[in-house]
Amino acid sequence: MKAARFHAKSDIRIETIPDPPPPGPNEVTIDVHWGGICGTDLHEYIVGPRVINTASRPHGLTGSCLPLTLGHEFCGRVSEVPEGSKLQVGQAVMVDPRLNCRECLACTSGRANVCEKWGFLGLNGGGGGGAGFSEKVNVASRMCYVLDESVDLDDAVLIEPLTVGRHALAATGIEDFSGLNVLVVGGGPVGVAVLYNLRAKGVGRLLVSEPTAKRSDLVRELGLASGDDVMNPLIVSVPEECLSRTEGKGIDVVFDCAGIPAGLEAGADALRAGGMYMNVAGWELPMTIPMQYCMLKELTVKFSMAYDDKDFQDVVADFAAGKFAGVEKMITARVTLDDIVSKGFDELLTKKDDHVKIVVTPRAGLST
Amino acid sequence: MKAARFHAKSDIRIETIPDPPPPGPNEVTIDVHWGGICGTDLHEYIVGPRVINTASRPHGLTGSCLPLTLGHEFCGRVSEVPEGSKLQVGQAVMVDPRLNCRECLACTSGRANVCEKWGFLGLNGGGGGGAGFSEKVNVASRMCYVLDESVDLDDAVLIEPLTVGRHALAATGIEDFSGLNVLVVGGGPVGVAVLYNLRAKGVGRLLVSEPTAKRSDLVRELGLASGDDVMNPLIVSVPEECLSRTEGKGIDVVFDCAGIPAGLEAGADALRAGGMYMNVAGWELPMTIPMQYCMLKELTVKFSMAYDDKDFQDVVADFAAGKFAGVEKMITARVTLDDIVSKGFDELLTKKDDHVKIVVTPRAGLST
Repeated sequence: MKAARFHAKSDIRIETIPDPPPPGPNEVTIDVHWGGICGTDLHEYIVGPRVINTASRPHGLTGSCLPLTLGHEFCGRVSEVPEGSKLQVGQAVMVDPRLNCRECLACTSGRANVCEKWGFLGLNGGGGGGAGFSEKVNVASRMCYVLDESVDLDDAVLIEPLTVGRHALAATGIEDFSGLNVLVVGGGPVGVAVLYNLRAKGVGRLLVSEPTAKRSDLVRELGLASGDDVMNPLIVSVPEECLSRTEGKGIDVVFDCAGIPAGLEAGADALRAGGMYMNVAGWELPMTIPMQYCMLKELTVKFSMAYDDKDFQDVVADFAAGKFAGVEKMITARVTLDDIVSKGFDELLTKKDDHVKIVVTPRAGLST
Repeated sequence: MKAARFHAKSDIRIETIPDPPPPGPNEVTIDVHWGGICGTDLHEYIVGPRVINTASRPHGLTGSCLPLTLGHEFCGRVSEVPEGSKLQVGQAVMVDPRLNCRECLACTSGRANVCEKWGFLGLNGGGGGGAGFSEKVNVASRMCYVLDESVDLDDAVLIEPLTVGRHALAATGIEDFSGLNVLVVGGGPVGVAVLYNLRAKGVGRLLVSEPTAKRSDLVRELGLASGDDVMNPLIVSVPEECLSRTEGKGIDVVFDCAGIPAGLEAGADALRAGGMYMNVAGWELPMTIPMQYCMLKELTVKFSMAYDDKDFQDVVADFAAGKFAGVEKMITARVTLDDIVSKGFDELLTKKDDHVKIVVTPRAGLST
């Protein structure tokens, strides 16, 4: 089968590799329909291998190292099941791509998302050699969420980033956002996911900082924030705008979905004393905390990592129930696996401002 | 009167300056008995002026800039009061040295410790020219805590750092530490203050990381932690020791009372998934957060700044009630104001390992 494999920084190749073996007793084989290119994939392409394993540090669960098939946001249809499987051939499924040991203290204390041996199918091996950017992939049955036939498989791939947004809300520990002033820094896929989840929960005042016209327009078009509440940080002072738009109270919670120093500083500056900075972004470099803000305002800095079982279950159910209607507008290009480098990764690098999410299919005829 | 004034980095001078003017209607004049040299004072001496104001950035409340009289941890006796004052000449008082505007959102929402115009008498002006390192100082009456005559004024100066420790506990938001594993990084004055307050509250398991023999011995001598529970991070792996001493569970809360990268990394590494890192330390440089720990363990990073009214009231009461018995052992040298540079600041710089807290008096005959 065809697969997009990471060999090194700036070196992703479309290769022919063996099909996955027949699924093991607790697995199924899936024909991939769509896989999304994630910010993490892009980080690896630019500065990797970081999350991706090398020969000197193979993954603790899969034992794998590069070259590795990419693609951890993906959906498809079950194509092969072992005897006695609860899943059936032909079923549409969304995959929770997390790899975890189910044995460590984190896993056994309800924090499998931060398993000591954490990893993702599509970054760290597994899958019988396949992943979201190959034709087929083997997946543990328990990680497959069957989608109702009413769900459009062309869009279901967005369930994964939406789940990242859901978890970020849960990770704040805040139950009720209805009286709070919230700033979302970054209107990319994770930012949009956070916004959808916030809107569903109900927020006092919701502001967004996003420098590109494409993403700002999308946020407005999706009805997630309106008009001037979507601010361009290159034009206005986000902290000053936040203060004036919250009657001088400042922001209670910032969701950083950008992961750049300017966003961190503006976000921390916009926070009221005692406010919370929630990092949902991956950072290319260690994050340098501006002490003058954090200590002198007694901020709380929290971090959100992926998602847990409940997040995934809930978002799949909400997606099927139509609660993310319109979210497919986040997809700004659909490309074939053959074109994943030129029309996917390189396109995101050179025309970042034109895109939100690019999705990829290994199936001819699906890419239009 | 004599005063120790900060002119520039490495330039603190004992000078004769005018006595403070007669106290205003809501002030009193205090004859200083003892002032403590704080880590912040030392930072200013090494790399300042930072907190101390310069001509280009005078303080927002006092309008002052350097040269400024130092000393924000101090106690003394009331020597002059205005008509109608509730305070009386001769009363022993401990001073809360915070400057705050009482008008900003932080002040009016119960967070005066992070007032937008925060400052300290002894770093940022005020005091009628005096502060903790001068013979006399004017202080707002509401910031004076009358000490019972049973309290030894030779030791009461320690109330200020003890209050920093009290606030750090409160700032965690955790009510009950009794089932928690806690690591205190740094056994200096702030670390000891945190330890005293933790012991008073009750902690599941208390571990300490401190590299110097002097401070480790003091922690043990004060009964704050015993034997091997006071670890030398230069000899043992603190994260590994924490894991083994908590039956593999890891640390729930780290109090960083050191403010150095090695301490931050060891502390973050010792934390369990979902644990809390509470920074009580001042950092000379911006703090660089190790993302690999914080995100992959979903840590919460919090910051504690000084203290609030309630912290001060409570610690004064507890001090008078003898709850900090033995804490005077933290004082490793008593010096006169004339000797503050050579036997105070320079001593702390060159013989750091020999000291915990050095206190200073402007009164001849009190320094032995």
